[in-house]
Amino acid sequence: MSKKLTKRSEDYSKWYNELVVKADLAENSAVRGCMVIKPYGYAIWENMQKELDRMFKETGHENAYFPLLVPKSLFEAEEKNAEGFAKECAVVTHYRLQNDPDNEGKLRVDPSAKLEEELVIRPTSEAIIWNTYKGWIQSYRDLPLLINQWANVVRWEMRTRLFLRTAEFLWQEGHTAHATKNEAVAESKQMQEVYATFAETFMAMPVVKGAKSESERFAGAEETYTIEALMQDGKALQAGTSHFLGQNFAKAFDVKYTSKEGKQEYVWATSWGVSTRLIGGLIMTHSDDAGLVLPPKLAPIQVVIVPIYKGEEQLATISEKVNVFVKELRAQGISVKFDDRDTYRPGAKFAEYELKGVPLRIAIGNRDLENNTVEIARRDTFEKQTVSQDDLVAVVSDLLSQIQDNLFNKALAHRASHTTSVDTFDAFKEALETTGGFVSAHWDGSIATEEAIKDATKATIRCIPNDAKDEAGACVFSGKPSTRRVLFAKAY
Amino acid sequence: MSKKLTKRSEDYSKWYNELVVKADLAENSAVRGCMVIKPYGYAIWENMQKELDRMFKETGHENAYFPLLVPKSLFEAEEKNAEGFAKECAVVTHYRLQNDPDNEGKLRVDPSAKLEEELVIRPTSEAIIWNTYKGWIQSYRDLPLLINQWANVVRWEMRTRLFLRTAEFLWQEGHTAHATKNEAVAESKQMQEVYATFAETFMAMPVVKGAKSESERFAGAEETYTIEALMQDGKALQAGTSHFLGQNFAKAFDVKYTSKEGKQEYVWATSWGVSTRLIGGLIMTHSDDAGLVLPPKLAPIQVVIVPIYKGEEQLATISEKVNVFVKELRAQGISVKFDDRDTYRPGAKFAEYELKGVPLRIAIGNRDLENNTVEIARRDTFEKQTVSQDDLVAVVSDLLSQIQDNLFNKALAHRASHTTSVDTFDAFKEALETTGGFVSAHWDGSIATEEAIKDATKATIRCIPNDAKDEAGACVFSGKPSTRRVLFAKAY
Repeated sequence: MSKKLTKRSEDYSKWYNELVVKADLAENSAVRGCMVIKPYGYAIWENMQKELDRMFKETGHENAYFPLLVPKSLFEAEEKNAEGFAKECAVVTHYRLQNDPDNEGKLRVDPSAKLEEELVIRPTSEAIIWNTYKGWIQSYRDLPLLINQWANVVRWEMRTRLFLRTAEFLWQEGHTAHATKNEAVAESKQMQEVYATFAETFMAMPVVKGAKSESERFAGAEETYTIEALMQDGKALQAGTSHFLGQNFAKAFDVKYTSKEGKQEYVWATSWGVSTRLIGGLIMTHSDDAGLVLPPKLAPIQVVIVPIYKGEEQLATISEKVNVFVKELRAQGISVKFDDRDTYRPGAKFAEYELKGVPLRIAIGNRDLENNTVEIARRDTFEKQTVSQDDLVAVVSDLLSQIQDNLFNKALAHRASHTTSVDTFDAFKEALETTGGFVSAHWDGSIATEEAIKDATKATIRCIPNDAKDEAGACVFSGKPSTRRVLFAKAY
Repeated sequence: MSKKLTKRSEDYSKWYNELVVKADLAENSAVRGCMVIKPYGYAIWENMQKELDRMFKETGHENAYFPLLVPKSLFEAEEKNAEGFAKECAVVTHYRLQNDPDNEGKLRVDPSAKLEEELVIRPTSEAIIWNTYKGWIQSYRDLPLLINQWANVVRWEMRTRLFLRTAEFLWQEGHTAHATKNEAVAESKQMQEVYATFAETFMAMPVVKGAKSESERFAGAEETYTIEALMQDGKALQAGTSHFLGQNFAKAFDVKYTSKEGKQEYVWATSWGVSTRLIGGLIMTHSDDAGLVLPPKLAPIQVVIVPIYKGEEQLATISEKVNVFVKELRAQGISVKFDDRDTYRPGAKFAEYELKGVPLRIAIGNRDLENNTVEIARRDTFEKQTVSQDDLVAVVSDLLSQIQDNLFNKALAHRASHTTSVDTFDAFKEALETTGGFVSAHWDGSIATEEAIKDATKATIRCIPNDAKDEAGACVFSGKPSTRRVLFAKAY
């Protein structure tokens, strides 16, 4: 715990890796590219899930569960989707191990237990779900079908990083079916809004809402809507995507419905997802050289109370007081931990909660008892204040909401100061190399130009912002005419 | 919806299979032995999860997440555990598909993407978790380690049935580490109690708490504590198990801690789990020939309100009233659905909610508006009553609690009338063949006798009940001395 973190200015990537492990969020496992999410990290994910799940249900979605394994023949049915994921999927070929005759105590694959058809561990569930929807959808009365799944998926990524890119990750995937194109487009845009609201309101992470360029679309989608956040190091993070799938999956799996007029029509589809990657975004939006900084709305522990005492008698007196505070704070829905462990000193506890990003730390000692006070320290600004015990609940409540706002505003200011509008390719490259962050520029709309810019600068089109204005201009790379600016950045 | 269910008395197994599908709980998928859990079935699972998760957290456990895939070398480390699961595990051997050169548009396994070491999809997570715990446990200050995981697991079962036995299923698995044997035993017994409380209080399903005989123990456990429920057809269902694992996994993965006295000691372990199998138990405890019957505490919809109307104007007047009821009921934490769909008639709606086991159905028509009444029908007893709208919330609240109690008491009476105490093997066989259910009998404690009884009758020892009295007797099969009775039954 006490070992110092690498500074962000020294090596941002190293700082991130160390922080994830030291703050007890996650660690690498014995399985290549797969992580163990530790209790503290998982508690953040549970808080995220709780809010997202509520938002999905409020917008009319229900949860369901579909199989982990996808038969190869289903997997390959939607060609573009299959092509997009075939290169990175885990394949089950056998269903039994046996004792290895050459190696006592060891097991080997039983060659006689080979599957007739291989099974792919879902990298995403469109195939298995649309094959199921075929049986669920007959009439317009069965539509819209609004379903979400919380699940694990596996993508055999070659370069992995805790939370940001792992071979197995946890996510939710919404899969909806609609009678009309308009309804499906509206659904995919609605879910982009839900994700943006979640990111800004709960994660205190500002996002740009936009559409992906053709080359960055989800495999099998006609349009991909994205929310893009900017990390402290000036790189963008795709934080959530919502896809309008057209009738691609309906056609691949022959899913039709009988309309009110008695006609057979293919249905229209969307899918949308966010994952444990969000935790990576949360870390890289707010944390500092002292460790994790968590927005109160997602912090597993919002307030920690540390007693400063000598001897059991003092601890008992303090505990009596603290137990009342704990009850009062919990009654307000505030999550509080009273750390009365006698195996660690106050200083070690302070360091631990700083590293773990607990938004407020309250210390209470003998003198506080005499003065009817406590000391409250903010994690985001390190400010300390002494407050009367009588005002404790009101002050804590107010500070938590101040911290939530402060984190959002700081991130917003960071994004504003790291977004540059440019009109030449030299200015484009300079902005990327000096300021970093988002670069707003005219683009001629061609895949070739997008590729060429990527090759030259490593920057990709993060999105065509929803709120991009019509503006005549010339492409920064080709000089060809363009009608609006798009956002470029280097990205995770 | 309208097609009749097979009667339980005709073919219990067929009744079960039909009910699961018709009540929209689950269905078979395109993947052998794997099910799709439909939204209504999944909502029951979510309610179960919510209560269990709360109970786990109240007893000091935290959630975490460990990898889906287990390297073969870890899997085989604890020999008995490996032996128990090797015969039914899905094995990942490759990490990529490629275009099949002989079959345009088709994919095949890329032979060049063979894994150096095969990965097993977890059938249970002791191996991967204990390999991780090695890094987490150094000192007595790291103990106890109390962790739970909500996850999917895969066991390649040959004969599968929806919820009861599926190749993939959802479950929770607790994995704890303790400094002493006593603490670990106490933990495993505590979790047996938690499971029993959950089964009886929320599922309204009475259970017998006991210990498994040696041959029925979990592979790798020193003691398996179980809760056993009795289904309507007289077969027992193992509904949850909690294992005292001794130091087997600590030794297999070399997990030691430094005690307060500075000595290196192996830690003591438990693991415990319940799964989506519970939904099968819930169905077979309460449901009837008309469909599902759900205990109010787990029902996704506790109350459904169906308007009886002619024309839009009547519906508008009724809806105005109903919206008030809905608000009042929800304020009491009661989950209500107002089914105002105009695409189905009231009769069809009544049939649907009967099949789906909604505990209370409220009908409200024009005459009810005039008389300030509604009609309330109970799903468990089919009793109807007309009540004043003024009393609605109080009556609903009271009826829900009556239904919960009634279901438990009915199941308890069924178990009492299907538990037979016998002293001879003839009486044993007769009880099994006529009454069915639990047979309480003396057993000599040997595996050979247990096997012989199973071969002769298909009955297994479900458990040695925790509350079995010391009682000298003679084994019903061998005549050898016995000190207490154990419970036999045919089982799922």
